[in-house]
Amino acid sequence: MMNASKYKRQYYLPPETCMDWAKKDYIDKAPTWCSVDLRDGNQALVIPMSLEQKVEFFKLLVKIGFKEIEVGFPAASETEYTFLRTLIDRDLIPEDVTIQVLTQAREHIIRKTFEAVKGAPKAIVHVYNSTSVAQREQVFKKSKEEILKIAVDGAKLLKELAEQTEGNFQFEYSPESFTGTEPEYALEVCNAVIDVWQPTPENKCIINLPVTVEHSMPHVYASQVEYMCKHMLHRENVIVSLHPHNDRGCGVADSEMGILAGADRIEGTLFGNGERTGNVDIVTLGMNMYSQGVDPKLDFSDMPHICEVYEHCTGMSVGERSPYSGALVFAAFSGSHQDAIAKGMHWIEEKDPNRWTVPYLPIDPTDVGRNYDADVIRINSQSGKGGVGYILETKYGLNLPPKMREAMGYTAKGVSDHLHKELHPDEIFDLFKKTFENVAQPYSINEVHFQQKEVGITTKVTSTFNGRTITTEATGNGRLDAVSNALKKAYELKYTLEVYQEHALERSSSSKAIAYVGIKKPDGTMAWGAGVDPDIIRASIDALVTAINNR
Amino acid sequence: MMNASKYKRQYYLPPETCMDWAKKDYIDKAPTWCSVDLRDGNQALVIPMSLEQKVEFFKLLVKIGFKEIEVGFPAASETEYTFLRTLIDRDLIPEDVTIQVLTQAREHIIRKTFEAVKGAPKAIVHVYNSTSVAQREQVFKKSKEEILKIAVDGAKLLKELAEQTEGNFQFEYSPESFTGTEPEYALEVCNAVIDVWQPTPENKCIINLPVTVEHSMPHVYASQVEYMCKHMLHRENVIVSLHPHNDRGCGVADSEMGILAGADRIEGTLFGNGERTGNVDIVTLGMNMYSQGVDPKLDFSDMPHICEVYEHCTGMSVGERSPYSGALVFAAFSGSHQDAIAKGMHWIEEKDPNRWTVPYLPIDPTDVGRNYDADVIRINSQSGKGGVGYILETKYGLNLPPKMREAMGYTAKGVSDHLHKELHPDEIFDLFKKTFENVAQPYSINEVHFQQKEVGITTKVTSTFNGRTITTEATGNGRLDAVSNALKKAYELKYTLEVYQEHALERSSSSKAIAYVGIKKPDGTMAWGAGVDPDIIRASIDALVTAINNR
Repeated sequence: MMNASKYKRQYYLPPETCMDWAKKDYIDKAPTWCSVDLRDGNQALVIPMSLEQKVEFFKLLVKIGFKEIEVGFPAASETEYTFLRTLIDRDLIPEDVTIQVLTQAREHIIRKTFEAVKGAPKAIVHVYNSTSVAQREQVFKKSKEEILKIAVDGAKLLKELAEQTEGNFQFEYSPESFTGTEPEYALEVCNAVIDVWQPTPENKCIINLPVTVEHSMPHVYASQVEYMCKHMLHRENVIVSLHPHNDRGCGVADSEMGILAGADRIEGTLFGNGERTGNVDIVTLGMNMYSQGVDPKLDFSDMPHICEVYEHCTGMSVGERSPYSGALVFAAFSGSHQDAIAKGMHWIEEKDPNRWTVPYLPIDPTDVGRNYDADVIRINSQSGKGGVGYILETKYGLNLPPKMREAMGYTAKGVSDHLHKELHPDEIFDLFKKTFENVAQPYSINEVHFQQKEVGITTKVTSTFNGRTITTEATGNGRLDAVSNALKKAYELKYTLEVYQEHALERSSSSKAIAYVGIKKPDGTMAWGAGVDPDIIRASIDALVTAINNR
Repeated sequence: MMNASKYKRQYYLPPETCMDWAKKDYIDKAPTWCSVDLRDGNQALVIPMSLEQKVEFFKLLVKIGFKEIEVGFPAASETEYTFLRTLIDRDLIPEDVTIQVLTQAREHIIRKTFEAVKGAPKAIVHVYNSTSVAQREQVFKKSKEEILKIAVDGAKLLKELAEQTEGNFQFEYSPESFTGTEPEYALEVCNAVIDVWQPTPENKCIINLPVTVEHSMPHVYASQVEYMCKHMLHRENVIVSLHPHNDRGCGVADSEMGILAGADRIEGTLFGNGERTGNVDIVTLGMNMYSQGVDPKLDFSDMPHICEVYEHCTGMSVGERSPYSGALVFAAFSGSHQDAIAKGMHWIEEKDPNRWTVPYLPIDPTDVGRNYDADVIRINSQSGKGGVGYILETKYGLNLPPKMREAMGYTAKGVSDHLHKELHPDEIFDLFKKTFENVAQPYSINEVHFQQKEVGITTKVTSTFNGRTITTEATGNGRLDAVSNALKKAYELKYTLEVYQEHALERSSSSKAIAYVGIKKPDGTMAWGAGVDPDIIRASIDALVTAINNR
């Protein structure tokens, strides 16, 4: 059994109520995005990326539209140093992209970082030290004043080296483990750093408030961010950045509420890669805005390709239920959902093709390179008429009568249940043909002749049942009715012709028609058939015979 | 390129400000948990569970501690009906567990549901109809009044059939697609249903407010829940339930904020299985409370087993970064994190073993059946002294001098970088032994004799270098110093003896000691060696020789 008594809440509330953020209900503008895939993401891999993989990943990030990319901690390892030099020396950094390098607030590491970043057209130097109660006590064994001095000394050295080094530098400071730090103290440290840097409108600095470990609910973090924003020195010249991790599964909410609370910038990764439970997933953040009509300034239109490069470079996999990107996130197996989606798709087609409102699909899957056929309506034993009907209609041009959809739905469901597998569209179509199209056993028709009478039609039908062929004559209101009467007479069949529908079929180049027939059996239930033929009369007769064979 | 203009916000704010929930910062009591794994979870699988798998999963849920379990939609398919009957007829439902069955608000389905659930000791009958603007317009093409009537008629029929059917029934109603419904209208519908049921303190009803599709940020949902709670008829006799999905990656935040807003009950699944992006993950919700010292009333102490049964039954896999359960969520590869964790572990051992405050680890991994060795400190090219030192110390009993940890850290990092793979503890230990323990090439010692003098020690050392053996004499302050001087004299070595440390070794049953020696080379850098021997003098000499060999 688990014992909760050894835990207590490890976060600190701001000293005043900060709930203005909660008055807003949506984000109206994309923040500045900074990818930390090559840093936090990479360091959390069982096997970190090779140089070639990092270069490939960097190019992907640029293609998606990231303008700020943290490329590593060059003072920490030879590999990270080499990668940074490769980017600079091979001229791989586009003009509108700024690279970012991370360094601890320690003199020799800061010096090595500046050596590494020398010659980069533009760079953000990101310095941090840990400020939380736990880290001060347990790891650094230093007082608040001593920890503050580490930050200030680091900030001063950054300023000094930036002046001496070739290149354009922007500064970023993180009070690491912010979420385990008293907000008043974090504010004091950040303001001391800002005071050293004296940011201007032309040269803003970045203050990054990481959720190094998620300790609180997201609205607590939002109130901390709001508190920091309200009391920050030179706030107008500071870019407030967030860097949420996901230990409580709330990295997305942290980021979104933090933006409402005043943040301007988000550091995160694709698909939430990163230490432990990961960094915040920028794909989800961007697409969340997109789904409410706000341009995220990132391009995820070829999500399958993005997933592929990500998986290949990191060795991780994109979860099947990962928002907007997972294999199953647009899938509807359940009958009622399929039915609603099919109706919703029809509705927007008819009413407003420029407005997406389809039930159960927060976005149009084609916007991210997915497709309706393979990804949305999927058929297994949980599915019903809606899904099967939708697939037969959109993919194969078959517009079944509503009640026949139901029959076909049960048929598919039964097969899937029995085989214990999903049915793919081709299998659904094959099942339809095998079960409902031109079935000529045990009854079949050899020849039909019609004669127009004053009232109704007379027909002469030659048919075969179990190898025995007979010819019967009958009349009816129309051709199908007449044939039906002839067959009833021949074999003493008991049913009533209830449903008839037909439409042209674009399935092949030859122009064919399909007819659907539903007959009611003496017990009140229905049997169904379809017939396909260039001649609509022949198609309708085949449909009837199939229905009879399906009784 | 993507085009956001076809989207608009699809949610509706309550008609009054509802932000009381945001004044609370934590959840102090576990809600009632209802698992919908066998319903929502199952219907979202490519291959739904077989009867045997459902029974196995049901038993797992009972073992974890769920007291309410939705077992299916028995009127929808033969399989679900059979499963329900199996539970009842085989007497698999413990006395303190209530099963729940789902039904649409349609007469024949409700009737079939009551037939299916007949004889269950206790059951919640959960009736729903869809109330959102999109579903009213596109799917049902009905007015608000007509949709309300569907709900009320369903509620009446439930009441009527419950009176006629053997068993104990509780009622639950969901305005499905609540998050796309105007809150005032959802309230009107729910109150009409409550008015039919007239719940009492002895027979409360459940009103479930699903996030059928996540359309808004979680605080918007919380305000909707608060609004509903504030204006609900007979609120004191109503159990307000939430059923969040995860389309925007915020199912956990929805649930937690919804609880602060007044909800009493959560419907969700293990690991967030469920349609599309899934239902809310009850593992994360429960463990989030646990990590703040609140008993979740669910037992996840054997998480690896829970993951195993889950994966086996559903065919899904638990993501590597899935909070509290994923393979990598306790892993620290980075040097600074490893260092902090190692220090934090020492700290709690010394200061307060009953309070968990270790940096970078929100909970003690052993609480969920994981272990420090295999899951926490993991070594690859991103790692440093902290991790390697921690593994050698905790798993192999080696307490290296701090600077030697650093050297061993670089060695491990280099090997991992070169081999492009993670190093397992045994590989680290082998690497240590190979590199730093009793290395006798090119220098080795054949024989040593000591003689105590008035001041210091004299020694006679026979040593071999590249096949040539010589004997030299020297004096020193102590034995090791004397041997060192003899070797310096024999081979004109230039170094100073800087670090010496030793401790007993529990590695095997025989009682041995380990000595560590660090020597400073003329260029100021260090070389390291360790010696292991039952005789501590011999161990220290071996350490020295190894350090010399490592220059």
